[in-house]
Parts: sequence; C-alpha cells; structure tokens
Amino acid sequence: MPIFLSTDAPDFEPAFAALLSAKREDSPDVDAAVAAIIEDVRTRGDAAVIDLTAKFDRIDLTPQTLAISADEIAAAAAQVTTAEREALELAAERIRAYHVRQMPEDVQWVDPEGATLGWRWTPVPAAGLYVPGGLASYPSSLLMNAIPAKVAGVGRLAVAVPTPGGAVNPLVLLAAQIAGVDEIYRIGGAQAIAALAHGTETIAPVAKITGPGNAYVAAAKRRVFGKVGIDMIAGPSEILVIADAENDPDWIALDLMSQAEHDESAQALLITDDEAFGRAVAEAVEKRLETLERRAIAAASWRDFGAVITVRDLDEAATLSNCIAPEHLELCVADPQALAAKTVHAGAIFLGQWTPEAIGDYVGGPNHVLPTARSARFSSGLSVLDFLKRTTLAQMTPEALRAIGPAAERLAQSESLEAHGLSVAARLRRLNG
Amino acid sequence: MPIFLSTDAPDFEPAFAALLSAKREDSPDVDAAVAAIIEDVRTRGDAAVIDLTAKFDRIDLTPQTLAISADEIAAAAAQVTTAEREALELAAERIRAYHVRQMPEDVQWVDPEGATLGWRWTPVPAAGLYVPGGLASYPSSLLMNAIPAKVAGVGRLAVAVPTPGGAVNPLVLLAAQIAGVDEIYRIGGAQAIAALAHGTETIAPVAKITGPGNAYVAAAKRRVFGKVGIDMIAGPSEILVIADAENDPDWIALDLMSQAEHDESAQALLITDDEAFGRAVAEAVEKRLETLERRAIAAASWRDFGAVITVRDLDEAATLSNCIAPEHLELCVADPQALAAKTVHAGAIFLGQWTPEAIGDYVGGPNHVLPTARSARFSSGLSVLDFLKRTTLAQMTPEALRAIGPAAERLAQSESLEAHGLSVAARLRRLNG
Repeated sequence: MPIFLSTDAPDFEPAFAALLSAKREDSPDVDAAVAAIIEDVRTRGDAAVIDLTAKFDRIDLTPQTLAISADEIAAAAAQVTTAEREALELAAERIRAYHVRQMPEDVQWVDPEGATLGWRWTPVPAAGLYVPGGLASYPSSLLMNAIPAKVAGVGRLAVAVPTPGGAVNPLVLLAAQIAGVDEIYRIGGAQAIAALAHGTETIAPVAKITGPGNAYVAAAKRRVFGKVGIDMIAGPSEILVIADAENDPDWIALDLMSQAEHDESAQALLITDDEAFGRAVAEAVEKRLETLERRAIAAASWRDFGAVITVRDLDEAATLSNCIAPEHLELCVADPQALAAKTVHAGAIFLGQWTPEAIGDYVGGPNHVLPTARSARFSSGLSVLDFLKRTTLAQMTPEALRAIGPAAERLAQSESLEAHGLSVAARLRRLNG
Repeated sequence: MPIFLSTDAPDFEPAFAALLSAKREDSPDVDAAVAAIIEDVRTRGDAAVIDLTAKFDRIDLTPQTLAISADEIAAAAAQVTTAEREALELAAERIRAYHVRQMPEDVQWVDPEGATLGWRWTPVPAAGLYVPGGLASYPSSLLMNAIPAKVAGVGRLAVAVPTPGGAVNPLVLLAAQIAGVDEIYRIGGAQAIAALAHGTETIAPVAKITGPGNAYVAAAKRRVFGKVGIDMIAGPSEILVIADAENDPDWIALDLMSQAEHDESAQALLITDDEAFGRAVAEAVEKRLETLERRAIAAASWRDFGAVITVRDLDEAATLSNCIAPEHLELCVADPQALAAKTVHAGAIFLGQWTPEAIGDYVGGPNHVLPTARSARFSSGLSVLDFLKRTTLAQMTPEALRAIGPAAERLAQSESLEAHGLSVAARLRRLNG
C-alpha cells in the first residue's frame, strides 16, 4: 500500500516533506570506471570501443560492423507488422507536426540610435542519440529524440544502441528509418558516449548528445558535457494525478500504474479533494496489480513511493503540485484549464479525463523526454531548441557609436580594461576629429 | 609574436589543427575539495559557510552579516560618480530592451483530430547569480546575468559575491541595485554555490545558478547540476576578427588586445585576405603592447595563443571561422551581413568596423555571457530562456482519443508496457461501448 496523507492531519507537513525528499534511486559511483573508459576510447578509438563491446555486450565487432548496415535495417524493418508500422508513422507525424511549431524565428531590428540588433538560430552540426538496449529499448524514445533534431535541421544524426548478445529491436531500427537517422552504431554504455563525443576512426564526433541511459551513460554524459552539449540527466519517471470524485477510479489507477510499471524507482502520486475517491483508486490499483504483466515492478514502486493525498480544495492541490514539480501532471477535474493555469512547475500537463498520460508517451505530439526529480522547477522537456543555438548580431553605425560609445569607454575604465576602452576611443576620435 | 599561418602554405592543415586543439587552460583537479565543501555546507549550513569564508576570504561573518544590508548598498552606491552611474544605467536600459524581445510566447492550437495542444513558459522561481571577487569583479557581468532573469520574471534573485578582506566593489552593488537584485551575500567559492543550491538557515535555496567563477566555482556548479539548473561552464575569452585591408590596423590591434587583456589564457585571432595587412596589425599590436596597462597579460595571451591567418578569400575565412566557432566574431569587411550569413557557429557577431567587440561587452544590448572553447557549435549565450522553462500541454476530446488512441495502445503493447495500453483501452471501451 502507498502512504495516505491528508492536509487536514496535524503531521501533514513533515510527512509531505519526507515524501518530497525521498531518495528513489541509488546512484552507484561509477565515475572512476567511466573516466577510464572515456580515456581508453580517446586513446585507442575503434579498438577500445570494440574491446569494450566484446566485454560488456558479448559481441565481436570490427570497424566495418560497428555500424548497422542499410541491408540489416531493411531486413529488420520488414519484420515489423503493418499495424505497428502504421502506429509508428502516425506517432512520427504527430510528433513532427508539434515540434515544427517550436522552430523559433530569426529577428533583426534597428534601434533608436541606428544600431542594427538581432539574433539568428542555426542547427547544431551533428547530434548523437543514445537508445538503451534490453528492456528499456523504446522505439517511441527514438522518435522523441530524433524528430526534434531533424526538425531543427541537424545535418547528421547518429544513433548508438547496444545489442547485448547481438539482439536488435526491429522496431527501434524502423523508428530510426522513419525519423531519418543517418547512422546507427551497435554500441552502448560509456564507450558509446565517448565515441560520439570524441570520435574514433570510424565514428565522426557529434556536437550534442541526447537520450536516456543507465548510471554509466549518465556519468559519461556529465563528463563529456562542455566538449559536447547534452540534454538533461534523466531520473526515474513520475506522475502526479489530480482528480476529483467525478472520475472512474479504475482509469486513474491505470494512469498511476502506467508510470509505476516503468521502474521500481518510479513514483505515482494521487491528489484528490475526496478521501473516499482516493481509497477507491487505491483499491482499483490493488485489483489491477493482481494481473498486470509488470506487477512486480509496479507493486514495488507503488508500495515504496506511491502516495494518495487528500486536500481541502483544488487550490491546495495546485500548491502541493508546485512543490512536487512533477514530470507528468494529469488534471482529471471539471475545469482542467483553470487548474493548469495554477500549476506552474510541471514538465507536461495532460488535461481532462480523456487525456491519459500514455497518449503523451506515444502519439500526443509533445515530447515525452521530460524533467524528473523536481527539475521542472528550472528545466524543460526536450524540444527543437535543444538542437539549435542562437548567435547574437550587432552592427553599429558611426552615429550609434557616437551615442553609446562613451558609456562603453567609461565602464571599461571602471573595470580597468584599458584596451576595451581604447578600441572604442580610437573610433570616436576619428568620428570627432 | 603570435603564429602566422597561410592557407597557401603546405603545412597549413596540421598547424591549424594544432591551433584548434591547443589547451589554453589548466584545470586543477579540485573536485574532491569541492565535494567536501558542498557536503559541509549541506550538513552544517550557515556555520560551514561562515567558517569557510573566514578561511578563504579572511572575514568574520555572522548569520546576520552574511547579507550585505540595504544601508551598505546605499552607502556604496553613493560613492559612484555620476558619469559611472549614468553609463551603468544606459547599459542596463539597452540590455533590458534587447532581452525583452527574447520573451517567447505561449502557444495553443486545436489539431485536425480535435486535440488541444500547446505549451506555456513560466519563470524559474528563484535564481542565484555568482559574481567573482577581486580583479574580475565586473559590474557589467552582473547586469548581463541579472537583467535577463528579471525580464523573465524570476521572483527572487540572490547574488553571491566574495569580498576578500572585506573589500566590496561599489559599482557591483550599484549594478545590483539598478538590475533589481533582491539579496546580496558576501560569500564566494564552492561554499557560495553550495549555499545557493542547497540553502542554509539564512539563505533560501534557488532553482538556477548562473555566472562565471574560478575552478572551484566551476567544479561546484558541475556537481550541483541536476539539483539546480546551471548556465554553461565558462572558459577563457576568445575573439576572432576577420578583416580585409580596408581597415585601420590599430583599430583591429586594439580589438584583439581587448580580449587578450582579460587573461593569459585568452585567445585573439585575426583572419585576413591580405598578408601585408596582417603584418601591419601585428606591428600595431606590438606598439600598443609597449604602453597598455595590462600589457603583461595581453602579451602573454598574444604570444602563446594569438594567430594571424592569411586566406585566399573570404569564403575560406568563413570556413575557418566555422571550425573555430569563436565566442566573439568581428567582421570588418565591406559586406559584413553577407559574411555573417556564412559564419554559422559563433556566440556573437559584431558587424562592420564601427562595431568593436567592447561595445558588446557593455552597451550593445546582446548578452556578453557567451559560449567559449568551440561550444558555440552547440550552445548559445545567456538569454531570457535560461530563466524560463516550458510546460507542454495536451487535452484530448473523446473524438481525438478515438482517432489516435489505438496507435498508442499498439505501441504500448510493442514496448511491453501493458498498463500504458490499458489506460487508453479502458477509455476507448467506454467510448465504443
């Protein structure tokens, strides 16, 4: 059973604080091992990647077989059923349509002093996308990472996906094909991140690396940050459902379980203004846990990190939600738009009872790579902007320089940066001389 | 003397590659020391911050004197000359006017299936701004960090500025006042970053930390990344000037020196299509180095990392510039807009001979916190977006769910995430039942 809290209870505040600060994930200290792997790949290139892949994934590669060939991709794609292919294509189309709207515009204007100012967006030249192998090898995640990059105009998109024992997921290869990925390497772990960041004889380096991974991948991304750009360091998934009594308890139970089934460290929370409804949802969860395929995982997550919180009203729910800053926030209430306006820290909001969070994982359109562990207070889900960078532009006229140059000269003197001031003064002297 | 290269020379490629990969900065390994400091501040709060400040900055503080009081700020501000105050105010006004234009719009639309989709931007709740003490304590950097945060609507802005031996920079305090900073703490180093990220009894935690600092500050920011958001890890400053022969060599020399004077590890590069002009600029630099106040620093930077590269034409200059991906790019050529269109990787571009880079450091309007060390290939200068985060929104109707729900169910099954599929199926059954 999860914990049951009520804002009415005298001990609510410490119990809620404990819930917020619960450590859900052991981060093994793999930093030294990862540093050694990165150094090995930097020094020995392909040979290091091949040795490490033999060791960790039990497959023997050569420089020629590091990449999955076009024939292999075509053969794998042919195994996928028509229904699955159509579902992937619908998802890709909707994700693309949503992300196209995120493309920012270049701006340029002339200010009152006559200076031309503005900025310009351009894509990163090449991006690497990490896709985990094994259980969490999700074709949907490939689409969610690759499509924003392609929409941004990234010229080269390289995927790294480990294939332990040689097993590849045909759906992942098909998703890569649909998304327009340029290269797919059958490598994983810190060695894949190192190869993408630093390059090898066979794998050209990229400028940005995104995608989820295990502790080794996360530590490697943190280490190569600066050499390349990275997206966030993802933690276990979370959902907060705010629901009133006018909902089917079984629907809400399934929404909670759709996060809990990801991972024993996942967190599913319910806030409701009706205590009896909260109990009914908890009962529906227990019922579903009897038969769910991933019941061992979901039950552990629900038992260790789940919670049902009863509040006096929905304003209180919004306040608690803003403390939690959930990755996924589902608002199953009569006026979800009004409640959404009050919940300012959340990665993604799903409004109304017809919008189960799972829709957002696949076909809604918005990205499913979202900030976890309360980081929605300061960061956003993956978007086209992650694959673009902005260059600022400024062009003075002699008149503009005459108007604002003296202030720059003054401040340069205050900061004891003489050459800064002189570079302005030399030009002003010509203008005034 | 700097190195002289020419794309005509047979050994150009290896020499240019060596220039690109030159290691300009020793990063002392302070990670273990920083980890201990962060842990100390987490555990002992104010007491740890006070002890560490006594040790590193030689001043004795109490919880009551951690913050610089309003009276102290007013007294410091009163010391600043009218000319300096007016220059700071002009800078603040122009920075604000530029950054206001960066505010993104919230978007919402109804798609063909009837789903309402969109996103919403909200400010991070609180931001901490680090300002170095000593030589590099720049009021302009305070404005460049604080104003975008205020424009974004950040509710609380806390500044940390070390005051070694008790010395405060009145201009920094005045800049903080002008920018609307809410709190200023006289603390620095890793202990300041730890206090801002984790909070103490006196200092409430923030959600985002920006601002430059030494190796300790950089290592601390890397460590708290995830707990809070951070901006980039800044390296030493760089400028690339592309200039044709129609320029005053002394102006270009001063522009190069305005980066070189920052730091012995700074880098100033000139690319020109006229070898004799390149020589003339180098001579002008030598002349200026005879008298420049910071000549020891500037000369070391120019000698160790400076370069003059002669190219056949400006297209070649653009190609080299894109390899360098400079923090600052100055285009002193006849048609700077045309050349700017070809230089895709740069933090900030300064167009034409009337736009010395120093204008951008103070009063141009664009931000002067920019990506260094070739990171302009994948990252951008500081902006209003660094202090905002985006929440995606999705609301299905029954019809929209009927249209796209089956594809989500299909993909959930393919990924063996049963509860995901069931959460959609339960709703579809009601619709179809």
